[in-house]
Amino acid sequence: MTDAPKDIDALIEVMARLPGLGPRSARRAVLHMIKKRTLLLTPLADLMHKVAATARECLNCGNIGTRDICEICSAEKRANGELCVVEDVADLWAMERGGVFKGRYHVLGGTLSALDAVGPEELRIPKLIDRIAAEGITEVILALNATIDGQTTAHYIADQIGQTVTVTSLAQGVPIGGELDYLDDGTITAALRARKSF
Amino acid sequence: MTDAPKDIDALIEVMARLPGLGPRSARRAVLHMIKKRTLLLTPLADLMHKVAATARECLNCGNIGTRDICEICSAEKRANGELCVVEDVADLWAMERGGVFKGRYHVLGGTLSALDAVGPEELRIPKLIDRIAAEGITEVILALNATIDGQTTAHYIADQIGQTVTVTSLAQGVPIGGELDYLDDGTITAALRARKSF
Repeated sequence: MTDAPKDIDALIEVMARLPGLGPRSARRAVLHMIKKRTLLLTPLADLMHKVAATARECLNCGNIGTRDICEICSAEKRANGELCVVEDVADLWAMERGGVFKGRYHVLGGTLSALDAVGPEELRIPKLIDRIAAEGITEVILALNATIDGQTTAHYIADQIGQTVTVTSLAQGVPIGGELDYLDDGTITAALRARKSF
Repeated sequence: MTDAPKDIDALIEVMARLPGLGPRSARRAVLHMIKKRTLLLTPLADLMHKVAATARECLNCGNIGTRDICEICSAEKRANGELCVVEDVADLWAMERGGVFKGRYHVLGGTLSALDAVGPEELRIPKLIDRIAAEGITEVILALNATIDGQTTAHYIADQIGQTVTVTSLAQGVPIGGELDYLDDGTITAALRARKSF
């Protein structure tokens, strides 16, 4: 494929399978790494081996950490009765960067999808229902993406647990720093409907 | 940055330094690798270690291989008097994928740039001049990018060696499969000037 030595070719081929990279950008990345061998290639290989050996999914919430029960689930002070439901670990990290939410999380691992045959069992929804009782949850915050699948999943979960706990969702509106001219009509409509006194 | 465990955070941080990846795509790539640990993370780490240990730059042409003198420079039958000058190893690989060129290569490692203080000494241009005599080169094909820096470098090299060997450059024109409507004016002008009988 590249006329490069076998191992380099294999490395490019595996790199190209990462999301966001294709064959061309994988070639560029690999050449860059070879040029910066001590700064990039060796540290990356070492870190990947470490992460492969230590990373595990939290058995309780689905977060990625180094223990069977992650730091957030282990922290007593985060058991404040609030549970934030997210699609993916990346969303959990995004919420944590915000730094405002002090409760615990539940990572679904995707959204319901009739097309891809993803049902509630595939999504840790039974586990979510168990946790509500087991951890004395009083409010479930649905922080799912504002896509059709995300919102379908949110409605399904609200139907399942709405009798037992308060269910809320993230506010919709104009992003901080956002310009109206660049926003879609749906967001502007939602922001107008949810307007508040200044 | 991500509230992820230390090693995962470090891995994301190093991945984000690769060309074509930023912090967000590095996070996505790392989460994807952790999910596909045996298929991606461990093989990648192994291949990176192998490549870090074996990859080296050819002392003659600058190609990346596993020996001090690369396969192309070692192959007797590629000593046909033609030398193709490219900016980067990725360009050499692109030429080899074409499979038509049967001579040897010379990788400059960049282009002349007054802004970045890149002079001929930084670019293996002295080595190029040495090779023309040492390897009995009769034609130097300048396969540099059609950028301003690339063309400046091509003119500089042609000035230096034009007395001793034939200097040619890649044809410019409409790419195979290209649509006129999507081409820039410069390319159309060049293709029209270099038109040939049908």
